Amino acid sequence: MTDPIRVVQSEMEELTQELFQLLRIPSVSAHSERREDTRAAAQWVADHLRSSGLDATLVETSGHPVVLGEWRGAGPEAPTLLIYGHYDVQPAEPLELWTSPPFDPQIRDGRIYGRGTADDKGQLYLHLKALEILLRTRGSLPVNVIVLAEGEEEIGSPHLLPFLQSNRDRLACDAVVISDSQMFAPGQPSLLYSLRGLSYVEIRLRGARSDLHSGAYGGAVPNPATILSRLLATLHDDQGRITIPGFYDGVREWDAAARESIRKLPFDEEAFRQQVGSPRLEGEAGFSTLERLWTRPTCEVNGLHSGYTGEGAKTVLPGEAMAKVSFRLVPDQDPLEVEKLLRAHLARHTPSSVSLDVTSLHSGPPWRGNPDGPFFHAAERALERTFGKEPVLTGEGGSIPIVADFERELNAPAILLGFALPGANMHAPDEWFPYAHLELGIATLIHLFEELEEENATG
Amino acid sequence: MTDPIRVVQSEMEELTQELFQLLRIPSVSAHSERREDTRAAAQWVADHLRSSGLDATLVETSGHPVVLGEWRGAGPEAPTLLIYGHYDVQPAEPLELWTSPPFDPQIRDGRIYGRGTADDKGQLYLHLKALEILLRTRGSLPVNVIVLAEGEEEIGSPHLLPFLQSNRDRLACDAVVISDSQMFAPGQPSLLYSLRGLSYVEIRLRGARSDLHSGAYGGAVPNPATILSRLLATLHDDQGRITIPGFYDGVREWDAAARESIRKLPFDEEAFRQQVGSPRLEGEAGFSTLERLWTRPTCEVNGLHSGYTGEGAKTVLPGEAMAKVSFRLVPDQDPLEVEKLLRAHLARHTPSSVSLDVTSLHSGPPWRGNPDGPFFHAAERALERTFGKEPVLTGEGGSIPIVADFERELNAPAILLGFALPGANMHAPDEWFPYAHLELGIATLIHLFEELEEENATG
Repeated sequence: MTDPIRVVQSEMEELTQELFQLLRIPSVSAHSERREDTRAAAQWVADHLRSSGLDATLVETSGHPVVLGEWRGAGPEAPTLLIYGHYDVQPAEPLELWTSPPFDPQIRDGRIYGRGTADDKGQLYLHLKALEILLRTRGSLPVNVIVLAEGEEEIGSPHLLPFLQSNRDRLACDAVVISDSQMFAPGQPSLLYSLRGLSYVEIRLRGARSDLHSGAYGGAVPNPATILSRLLATLHDDQGRITIPGFYDGVREWDAAARESIRKLPFDEEAFRQQVGSPRLEGEAGFSTLERLWTRPTCEVNGLHSGYTGEGAKTVLPGEAMAKVSFRLVPDQDPLEVEKLLRAHLARHTPSSVSLDVTSLHSGPPWRGNPDGPFFHAAERALERTFGKEPVLTGEGGSIPIVADFERELNAPAILLGFALPGANMHAPDEWFPYAHLELGIATLIHLFEELEEENATG
Repeated sequence: MTDPIRVVQSEMEELTQELFQLLRIPSVSAHSERREDTRAAAQWVADHLRSSGLDATLVETSGHPVVLGEWRGAGPEAPTLLIYGHYDVQPAEPLELWTSPPFDPQIRDGRIYGRGTADDKGQLYLHLKALEILLRTRGSLPVNVIVLAEGEEEIGSPHLLPFLQSNRDRLACDAVVISDSQMFAPGQPSLLYSLRGLSYVEIRLRGARSDLHSGAYGGAVPNPATILSRLLATLHDDQGRITIPGFYDGVREWDAAARESIRKLPFDEEAFRQQVGSPRLEGEAGFSTLERLWTRPTCEVNGLHSGYTGEGAKTVLPGEAMAKVSFRLVPDQDPLEVEKLLRAHLARHTPSSVSLDVTSLHSGPPWRGNPDGPFFHAAERALERTFGKEPVLTGEGGSIPIVADFERELNAPAILLGFALPGANMHAPDEWFPYAHLELGIATLIHLFEELEEENATG
């Protein structure tokens, strides 16, 4: 029987080109003009699954379709593994900050650059390819497999939860594996057991009916840009703590042991600072950088726009001002409750000289997993076999809002097995994925199935 | 001899079309890609002057050219009037807020809509046409005339002062007339005797080298959008007063009589509020709306930009944040001194976690005139003859920075004779000029020359 790992190694050139096909499709789910492109990415994934030997269909939603692939050859008594990924990507703007075009993947310095290389088409592809090579070389898998790839992760997965709820039987499984995150460091594999949640809104203040001449009207007419700045300045105190009353009520503090385990990880604050390139690191007083990222909630201004922002000086008194504001949440904060507290805070601090409009854009619960069970341990062993090093447990500041949904609706543990590296620019220009991890990622997933087979044989 | 006023009335259709030619040229001086269009507007003005019988030339600068027209037929003993205007316009963005395209002038409800109708091509045209019709019907003018039209008023007139300084002899005159302002109210002609100055900067804060994923980095990396908001919030107190130390030191308070004269003007605050369309009027505590506009300095945020501002939710931690901030100044504040105070204030309040960059974009001194002298009184009589009502003296919140330069460099009083109306959207979408004032404006300027002739005859 051909060794599947050797197949991966011998086909690197072909599979790199195959991945590039998928990366070239600009499947930006947030942009309505990319609707057809997003669908094309779904079709690409379904075609790949089908040619690998899975049953695959596009399931329509009122948004972008869900791709569902199934292989039930292990029989009704065997365990079932659900693999989740998403084929949609973040918008690529600002385009001028990309070194090479976002949808024309290129390899430079051992990295594949392009939108979606890390988040998440590149990592979804690792699974597609591992399944294909295993089925090609061995003809079967040791467990049943369901592949669920959605196209709305970057816009808050509005149709995924209803899909899970109305397909509980079909999706019944023993574990959910997701590769949409990063390793703790190069050469250091990791398993994620903590994610932050999200609550994201757009705030709009309106003063005058239109932009006005700032000389003719300035001083007597409210300036929504000034008022917005003052409003946003009420969200934090001087210690970096969020000042919205009740905001911290839901926070489950980490115990001393968990904080200690984070402190023991080899983390170089100065290297991190240099990597992000900011003059100094800054955050909530009393916490280390990793604690701020993994264990503490945040409030961020994600975007600001008002008045004239082009070249030169335009003496305009803006008619409105907009801010995009989001919160990263930790267990047991509730995104909807946090949004309610924010709305009350904004209403209290907005003067009557402008109108306030808050639009909910996105939300998802925080999550903390259980680092145990046969699938989790099989993943640990698979990572150790591939990278020659025991994986560490980590948290992550980002959100995969549907992780908690999966666990709750399907009553199966989620295993977060990411292969990107720190600094991958996941939502920024020059997103990249380590080229070597294309091979190592596929190998790890092949090892995962081998470990599960071992488990079956001994279990 | 043909009555020039009757000529205006009989040629309204033709002269409207002629004005539209000028308005259709997108002479946006701030946009480098409009360089040729801006020059075309200069050429149009020079051609018009020449065909009216003036000597006219384009004087090159390292920016947009100055149009200089001269008629010296009244002889060296006669007084000389200098007419100043500008052929450049503000940027028209945001284009989607215009009811009709900014450079396709249209008449609706008695108004000519289009960029530059009021500020200032429409008003400059009143002078061009009055001169043309006077020379056509009478063959001469009672005073010598210099027309100086620049193309850089909307970007701070960087080359005008050097031009005045190096051409003092050629530009020697007895008064400067400028039509770049508005009347106090419909049917109520006015003469402006007070303008605010300007100091305009762009503030840029930089944190991380690029935009980052707000989940992966949020909470541990400085957010320049949040910090910018907090920084801008330090510029005012809760009473609408500017908190920059030393900011009010230069302010010459208006005496009780001057404040009383403003209070006596028929001004309807509620009508003003409805016209601008804001929920409430707001400004420095202790002053009326007209006082705030004419007699008090301001600090306005003219533009804000940071991070993601498109459709939907993008979870980005911005790498930088930008604000355009300007001050309207009153006598005897010095724009350069104010900018110095601002820079010190910003440096003091910017945390070391971001870098601060302040760029000077524009500045000009405030001005208060002398409502006296033969030209001023001729202008008063011309307005009264045209509108049947004595003009009132007004201030204006806007700036025409070069007014003070003219007075100082040419040692001649400036007379500010504006024909736009309140709410003209001078720096906003749907800029307009009252169609009836096209006729009345030209008529007033013809009357002005007739009054000056009368003056000569009796003087």
